[in-house]
Amino acid sequence: MKLIQSRDNAFFKQLKRLAESGRERRKSGQTLLDGLHLVEAWEAQRGPVSSLIVSESALAGGEIQAWLGERECTVISAALMRELGLVDTPSGLLAVVDTPQANVAVDREKDAVLLDGVQDPGNLGSLLRSAAAAGVRQVLLSPGCAAAWSPKVLRAGQGAHFVLDIHEEADLGAFIASYAGTTAVTCLDGATSLYAAGWQGPLAWVFGSEGLGVRRELIDAAQLKIRIPMPGAVESLNVGAAAAVCLFEMVRRRQA
Amino acid sequence: MKLIQSRDNAFFKQLKRLAESGRERRKSGQTLLDGLHLVEAWEAQRGPVSSLIVSESALAGGEIQAWLGERECTVISAALMRELGLVDTPSGLLAVVDTPQANVAVDREKDAVLLDGVQDPGNLGSLLRSAAAAGVRQVLLSPGCAAAWSPKVLRAGQGAHFVLDIHEEADLGAFIASYAGTTAVTCLDGATSLYAAGWQGPLAWVFGSEGLGVRRELIDAAQLKIRIPMPGAVESLNVGAAAAVCLFEMVRRRQA
Repeated sequence: MKLIQSRDNAFFKQLKRLAESGRERRKSGQTLLDGLHLVEAWEAQRGPVSSLIVSESALAGGEIQAWLGERECTVISAALMRELGLVDTPSGLLAVVDTPQANVAVDREKDAVLLDGVQDPGNLGSLLRSAAAAGVRQVLLSPGCAAAWSPKVLRAGQGAHFVLDIHEEADLGAFIASYAGTTAVTCLDGATSLYAAGWQGPLAWVFGSEGLGVRRELIDAAQLKIRIPMPGAVESLNVGAAAAVCLFEMVRRRQA
Repeated sequence: MKLIQSRDNAFFKQLKRLAESGRERRKSGQTLLDGLHLVEAWEAQRGPVSSLIVSESALAGGEIQAWLGERECTVISAALMRELGLVDTPSGLLAVVDTPQANVAVDREKDAVLLDGVQDPGNLGSLLRSAAAAGVRQVLLSPGCAAAWSPKVLRAGQGAHFVLDIHEEADLGAFIASYAGTTAVTCLDGATSLYAAGWQGPLAWVFGSEGLGVRRELIDAAQLKIRIPMPGAVESLNVGAAAAVCLFEMVRRRQA
């Protein structure tokens, strides 16, 4: 057990770079997991993490201390943990891990979720979580999306990353063009109500960025243009909410 | 048109207090709207805003300049706009408004959404948006929830606030006890699948905090204990996603 109290410590400086810089995460091939739940989810799926970091206060008692037991870890002061600035309320436990690479090819005959320019880390994490909960295994991200393996997206994903095949920098148009199933896109001027739309077999759902929606060329390429009926006084949903509604309508029909 | 370039300017200092401090917002009875969409949504529902603030760069051209026309506004430098720290990518347009008060009593015979300790501003805003889109007009927030009228929640709500009756610091248990309709709560150990559950008439949906879920006493008081079936490898959803799934299952059935 090492104790770090100085921000000039080389290991702390490396943690800070990993926390703050996407470039550093790409260069090193590493990222950070924040919180006990996420570390446990990783280890259940992918084996031991490379390195554990715990704050002095978390080490002083409670759930994290009990979980750690005799495991080796680096202890840093609560002030240094906050300085990493990962989340508003640091959990007190971090892990360094090697960022997984998508080591399987995309499958053009299975369900998929395609994300076009989703930039908000919280939304992206929630979308990954909904896909995994609905039983969709592969997610393709366009070049304009947030980095899937950033600490904030990992935190919002709550472990969904570790059970998904995540393909970043994907060419969504090329995937749709050769997809064996039905591509469905949600758009405000969609012709068909989600609840009236007919479909069979595998589905590729396309969801777009908050501000801009799905690119026109992808909308045009999709077989199903769907709108979610909204009887209330506002007529749009957060992209994470809209995706959950669509994915679980698929779940409902398959269970019926 | 006034131009402010110094952070010592009294009006800028007041903006910064409004941006940063919930206590200041309560004391002054004012809050901030960030972005053209939100300002337009406010004015469509509630009339002119008290005061408009625009960044120099937004004034130099584009959508915001065109929208402003001859309207009076205060111009601040882009650096000062960023210093307010409201969002990662400031829109360039802010408005000061008087925080609305819930001026209607809760209605024990109409649909409602009850939020128990939802603290994340993005989640809370998304939940309000889903409620409004689904046609639910009243939302009750427990004392542990984030402040509904903070700039971040307003931004995530995208105008939903202005068409809802929002009751903060509400006693959810008392509401449920005297509610004329059916109270439904989502919980992981819920006995009934959302898709198999039967209900009629008005519904009060209870959703809980990310970490802790809904308090036990509220779960016990609800007539319907519902789980969302999750065929995938993860077994929980973001609270905003879970709420959207439930609220739009209600929409689907009412349209059927």
